[in-house]
Amino acid sequence: MTQIQQEKQKIMVIIPIAADSAEAFMPGFETEINAAISSDFEVTYKSLPGQATPFIQSRTAEFWDTFGIIEIAQQAQKEGFNGIFVNCFGEPGVEVLKEIVDIPVVGGFYPAIANAMMVSSRFSIVTVLPSVVPMLWTLARQMGVTSSVASVREVGLSVNQLEDTELLKQKLLEQSIIAIEQDGAEAILLGCTGMLEVNQWLAKQLEVHFNGQYVPVVAPVGSAIGALQNLIKNNLSASRLTYYKPVEFTGMTPTSPY
Amino acid sequence: MTQIQQEKQKIMVIIPIAADSAEAFMPGFETEINAAISSDFEVTYKSLPGQATPFIQSRTAEFWDTFGIIEIAQQAQKEGFNGIFVNCFGEPGVEVLKEIVDIPVVGGFYPAIANAMMVSSRFSIVTVLPSVVPMLWTLARQMGVTSSVASVREVGLSVNQLEDTELLKQKLLEQSIIAIEQDGAEAILLGCTGMLEVNQWLAKQLEVHFNGQYVPVVAPVGSAIGALQNLIKNNLSASRLTYYKPVEFTGMTPTSPY
Amino acid sequence: MTQIQQEKQKIMVIIPIAADSAEAFMPGFETEINAAISSDFEVTYKSLPGQATPFIQSRTAEFWDTFGIIEIAQQAQKEGFNGIFVNCFGEPGVEVLKEIVDIPVVGGFYPAIANAMMVSSRFSIVTVLPSVVPMLWTLARQMGVTSSVASVREVGLSVNQLEDTELLKQKLLEQSIIAIEQDGAEAILLGCTGMLEVNQWLAKQLEVHFNGQYVPVVAPVGSAIGALQNLIKNNLSASRLTYYKPVEFTGMTPTSPY
Amino acid sequence: MTQIQQEKQKIMVIIPIAADSAEAFMPGFETEINAAISSDFEVTYKSLPGQATPFIQSRTAEFWDTFGIIEIAQQAQKEGFNGIFVNCFGEPGVEVLKEIVDIPVVGGFYPAIANAMMVSSRFSIVTVLPSVVPMLWTLARQMGVTSSVASVREVGLSVNQLEDTELLKQKLLEQSIIAIEQDGAEAILLGCTGMLEVNQWLAKQLEVHFNGQYVPVVAPVGSAIGALQNLIKNNLSASRLTYYKPVEFTGMTPTSPY
Amino acid sequence: MTQIQQEKQKIMVIIPIAADSAEAFMPGFETEINAAISSDFEVTYKSLPGQATPFIQSRTAEFWDTFGIIEIAQQAQKEGFNGIFVNCFGEPGVEVLKEIVDIPVVGGFYPAIANAMMVSSRFSIVTVLPSVVPMLWTLARQMGVTSSVASVREVGLSVNQLEDTELLKQKLLEQSIIAIEQDGAEAILLGCTGMLEVNQWLAKQLEVHFNGQYVPVVAPVGSAIGALQNLIKNNLSASRLTYYKPVEFTGMTPTSPY
Amino acid sequence: MTQIQQEKQKIMVIIPIAADSAEAFMPGFETEINAAISSDFEVTYKSLPGQATPFIQSRTAEFWDTFGIIEIAQQAQKEGFNGIFVNCFGEPGVEVLKEIVDIPVVGGFYPAIANAMMVSSRFSIVTVLPSVVPMLWTLARQMGVTSSVASVREVGLSVNQLEDTELLKQKLLEQSIIAIEQDGAEAILLGCTGMLEVNQWLAKQLEVHFNGQYVPVVAPVGSAIGALQNLIKNNLSASRLTYYKPVEFTGMTPTSPY
Repeated sequence: MTQIQQEKQKIMVIIPIAADSAEAFMPGFETEINAAISSDFEVTYKSLPGQATPFIQSRTAEFWDTFGIIEIAQQAQKEGFNGIFVNCFGEPGVEVLKEIVDIPVVGGFYPAIANAMMVSSRFSIVTVLPSVVPMLWTLARQMGVTSSVASVREVGLSVNQLEDTELLKQKLLEQSIIAIEQDGAEAILLGCTGMLEVNQWLAKQLEVHFNGQYVPVVAPVGSAIGALQNLIKNNLSASRLTYYKPVEFTGMTPTSPY
Repeated sequence: MTQIQQEKQKIMVIIPIAADSAEAFMPGFETEINAAISSDFEVTYKSLPGQATPFIQSRTAEFWDTFGIIEIAQQAQKEGFNGIFVNCFGEPGVEVLKEIVDIPVVGGFYPAIANAMMVSSRFSIVTVLPSVVPMLWTLARQMGVTSSVASVREVGLSVNQLEDTELLKQKLLEQSIIAIEQDGAEAILLGCTGMLEVNQWLAKQLEVHFNGQYVPVVAPVGSAIGALQNLIKNNLSASRLTYYKPVEFTGMTPTSPY
Repeated sequence: MTQIQQEKQKIMVIIPIAADSAEAFMPGFETEINAAISSDFEVTYKSLPGQATPFIQSRTAEFWDTFGIIEIAQQAQKEGFNGIFVNCFGEPGVEVLKEIVDIPVVGGFYPAIANAMMVSSRFSIVTVLPSVVPMLWTLARQMGVTSSVASVREVGLSVNQLEDTELLKQKLLEQSIIAIEQDGAEAILLGCTGMLEVNQWLAKQLEVHFNGQYVPVVAPVGSAIGALQNLIKNNLSASRLTYYKPVEFTGMTPTSPY
Repeated sequence: MTQIQQEKQKIMVIIPIAADSAEAFMPGFETEINAAISSDFEVTYKSLPGQATPFIQSRTAEFWDTFGIIEIAQQAQKEGFNGIFVNCFGEPGVEVLKEIVDIPVVGGFYPAIANAMMVSSRFSIVTVLPSVVPMLWTLARQMGVTSSVASVREVGLSVNQLEDTELLKQKLLEQSIIAIEQDGAEAILLGCTGMLEVNQWLAKQLEVHFNGQYVPVVAPVGSAIGALQNLIKNNLSASRLTYYKPVEFTGMTPTSPY
Repeated sequence: MTQIQQEKQKIMVIIPIAADSAEAFMPGFETEINAAISSDFEVTYKSLPGQATPFIQSRTAEFWDTFGIIEIAQQAQKEGFNGIFVNCFGEPGVEVLKEIVDIPVVGGFYPAIANAMMVSSRFSIVTVLPSVVPMLWTLARQMGVTSSVASVREVGLSVNQLEDTELLKQKLLEQSIIAIEQDGAEAILLGCTGMLEVNQWLAKQLEVHFNGQYVPVVAPVGSAIGALQNLIKNNLSASRLTYYKPVEFTGMTPTSPY
Repeated sequence: MTQIQQEKQKIMVIIPIAADSAEAFMPGFETEINAAISSDFEVTYKSLPGQATPFIQSRTAEFWDTFGIIEIAQQAQKEGFNGIFVNCFGEPGVEVLKEIVDIPVVGGFYPAIANAMMVSSRFSIVTVLPSVVPMLWTLARQMGVTSSVASVREVGLSVNQLEDTELLKQKLLEQSIIAIEQDGAEAILLGCTGMLEVNQWLAKQLEVHFNGQYVPVVAPVGSAIGALQNLIKNNLSASRLTYYKPVEFTGMTPTSPY
């Protein structure tokens, strides 16, 4: 019996930080993405070449790493990838990529918000550090969804402290309970793509705490992978009426900034 | 060589109208859903038993058909389905189902809005009739996304006139151009799940009209299937802090209202 | 001397729960409505026939009872009633009734909000249970008044516990003080039409607590009766551009669902 | 047989312009108020003493006439009136009166908006002159209801031209049709209390124009009388947490500014 | 060497309270204004003639003092002043002045908000008394900036208690810390123009409290002087499409109300 | 007579495009800035070093030029400048600069909006090309002022076509009239800092067109210079609770990307 094996569609996951820093998160990314991806897709991971930052917790780091993000994205398009996930909750470079490439691009924020809206009406984001809180409010304003965001809270841990899973879990649980009890949240969004393999645990703890009432915990990595598959399957990419193709400037060499 | 075939996850697509009326739309539903679904999922279609309406263009029809929707949804959960898509843009019964069942439920509106937000910043909905326009504005208010909706327009055709594909296409193109030029839309949402197999055509026409600028046309059926797969893969369903399990009233027989 | 007695205009008050459950609330309804109604109007009360729920604290119960609500409303219009009050804060069936009948219809939410807006600029709703809180936020979004709602709080009592007036009063006072002191409320809305004959008491207690500053407590039943008289006297009923007359489907028997 | 005649509750209608200018509007006011008032209430009319303006179409005139409005309101409270209606759509002096007197006060704007919200979800205001348009948008912002206002339009007639009823009707019809067709209005608010005895005519014309679909035309005078009766019957007046009693300054003579 | 001395542009600072009450604030006003004004401008101060109130903490006082404000403003325009600052955070009379005079007019609120927006994305106002809080929320609604206001708090001191600088400082620090920690403020606006010469101190204390993170404290007097210079230098004054020139009524004597 | 000459405060105006492209705009910048600046300040102009773009009409160009903007800004802070104006309406790099430097930074958008709010309540922006329109809506969302923006329109001219002043004027007048008549604008903002020395002309034409009613035309360059002087004089710079100082990464060389 002959079986025609359909070729898989290819997703590029850009990990928008330096390669050595990205390494620690790779097992978590793979676990979460493998769970969220269907068998019609395959994933390639790329962290940034050159002088990228070890993590992104400021607009400056977002800017700085966008150079490498563009480089990988342009290459991915040339190589026939079907979509790009910029694996960071703050969506660094995503607005720029939507201008530059023609294939669909998602970051970590919009897909998580979209999933949260489908399972609750008001929800809170719990992120890493105070510095990130206003950056996420700005994203919520940009997306036009502030009326659904009950609060943005943080666990007081830097991205490079997230490996201490026990501490992270404890802080997430604390802040999530406050978000629900004081801010009126009905669901929790993990506000950093580095908060890995804690969502199911957190959902379970919250269910216990709230007398058996299920509280969704939306993880951004899996949500983004799901959203990107959705866009690819539906032939959707960024509108050229929102994101006009930028003029190309001869003589510039954006692919080698370092 | 032994290949372990993983069992597919099952999606129930409820077509919330009477069986005989649903028939005409079945080929279109299948084409669009087959394109949007991944090979890890399989779909079952059910239209309504008993005295359901032939189409839904009023709150009254939405209400009326909710009885049958609940019946199918409860049965689907019992039979081990992993998620439910209520195949109508107006989301009839969806808020009620989120209380009654534990598996994820989506309608046609939220997923289409979510996809539109990922490819544009302001978009218009083009629906069937004037009567549906304020119903969709109310859904936009309920979802908290009015600031992203440039306008809600309609083609002046009833659901049972949508089979005249040529007329539909012409009217959609007309209204979409007005939405973009006068209302500031950057993408178009098809505002009825019965507008089938026209999205790619419309996108192409708009691209021609707007000097080669790509304009996304978001089709609700495929978007909803994508969103539901996303929720299922991420183990997300409706928050019990938004949608408390309702009290069950002994002696009532909600499954046989007719 | 001959006195021409003008015929009174007739208001139908639908108590959208089962007859036996409605009974306990009747004395309170009558007291509040008699105080709020002018001598040009007379009131008829009807609770639901058949298998109605004993109370409404979920979208499911709202849906379930809408069948009986429609039945009574249609009959009331035939009998020449001038307006309908669906006596529940969550406004079950009201959007549907606005399509079906031609006489003015009010629920408990919109009139209470309108009165609150005329005596304050930001106010809080205090309702029965956590399950109702997001339902009321959705109504506030639907009405487009969220910017005036300081918070939605609840007393932790089910509708069928409201008869314990002392407990209700104590809880209402507690939550109202928190709403004012922490959420910035300037007035209180009682968020359930079953919270009867407590508004004057609560207003007095709040005035004492806040150093003699008068705090309005808006009771939904009397407010709705006032709003309905207002609409009737001004010849206003639901716009047919918002609520198109629904298509009638021959052979359906919506008046006998049980 | 002895009949105990209950004493009627007294409403003071302040016509906030000079006495000679007010005269022309008196028959219209009386017709509309007599239709809207119930037999439990009686009305007294007072126009302004001293140097009041002949009409109000600017913030300056609103300010200027507030002196006389306060004077009458204070006197009305002393004489035992139960409520005050400041008979102008722009609500001159209303915020100040809510501080000064303890009885309920309404203007023309809030009650009309409240009635419009109960019969539609988006509506347009049609007022007199361009100068008034931004004043009404500011009131809509102050009341927190801009999301329900489809547009504010004007007929290009000054208040003292409103006596030409035929011209007014023609212009109202024109602007109302544009509001519905282009701005998405589902109901019309007459944006000046001097537009008298035209609402029923306009509603009829719009129904004809829109193929028999009823379009509510909300008249501010009757709506305000209805809202004031509602507040009085429900014992509601302005919150002292919104409108603190102002400090009284000895030696000032606010009642004789001219 | 001949130096052509350009004539300075003249700013009228209206202190909208009685002369004897204004006196206590004069040193503070001068210090703050001298710091904020450039050498191309010169300032004249005028407090109100006749029966003005000693301070403004109610809409009634705002109204009452507007008579004197208009009188001074009209005179200032005649005398060739280039701009007017109504020195009160509540902006008494400002909307009316924008109609009456042709030169630019600012109050204390809009300029402070504008400065706060340029140094933060969400901020809190700390004002004098509870009575002023809803007045400031109304201004925020009027200006259309509520989404940037984290909270409005108050120190519980009347304007005539502000001379106790030590008490004021302590209360401001307390409320500012709460605003930042609980309400999410990123900057503080002093919500009364009588809170003088405390902004630098408060900014320093907050920086210490928040671990060396600089927190802007926006003082309304200096901000308004800056904004007015900005308008004058750019030849901008109030739009006549927002603020139509009011009709003048012969025989009225608005300049001598007492 | 000895005159103590106070040292002037120094403003750095970054022209965020390539030096050769900047040249054409220099006379216009100087004229507008000289008019808007007070004699206490002096201005230094710097265009970008290296491979900057000739103009900015995309997010990509904004990103690309941010490298040079940062380089100049850091140098300016070292050299003791008191404030920075990034001379572009789209505010490229401004959010990043607020993190990196400690002195106040403004772009072209926020100051123009602030001035427009002080002279009108709703206004329109008229910019260069369709591609810029959604970028400006995003800025309006980010600033939280969308409710004051009547529309964003464009003249269909690229930045490098703005030298044709006559064409620009004609297009600006056309779009401004439409903005006022159809969109309800009460003032016009020039939506590109390259639209130089046309604001006074446009204001005059609009005044003629609108029957002598003055319509403010807000020019971004002068407004920004005014706003920056305001911040400097009031000792205000970006909040470190909004814009945390970013971590510095050793070994990176952000000052030489080319």
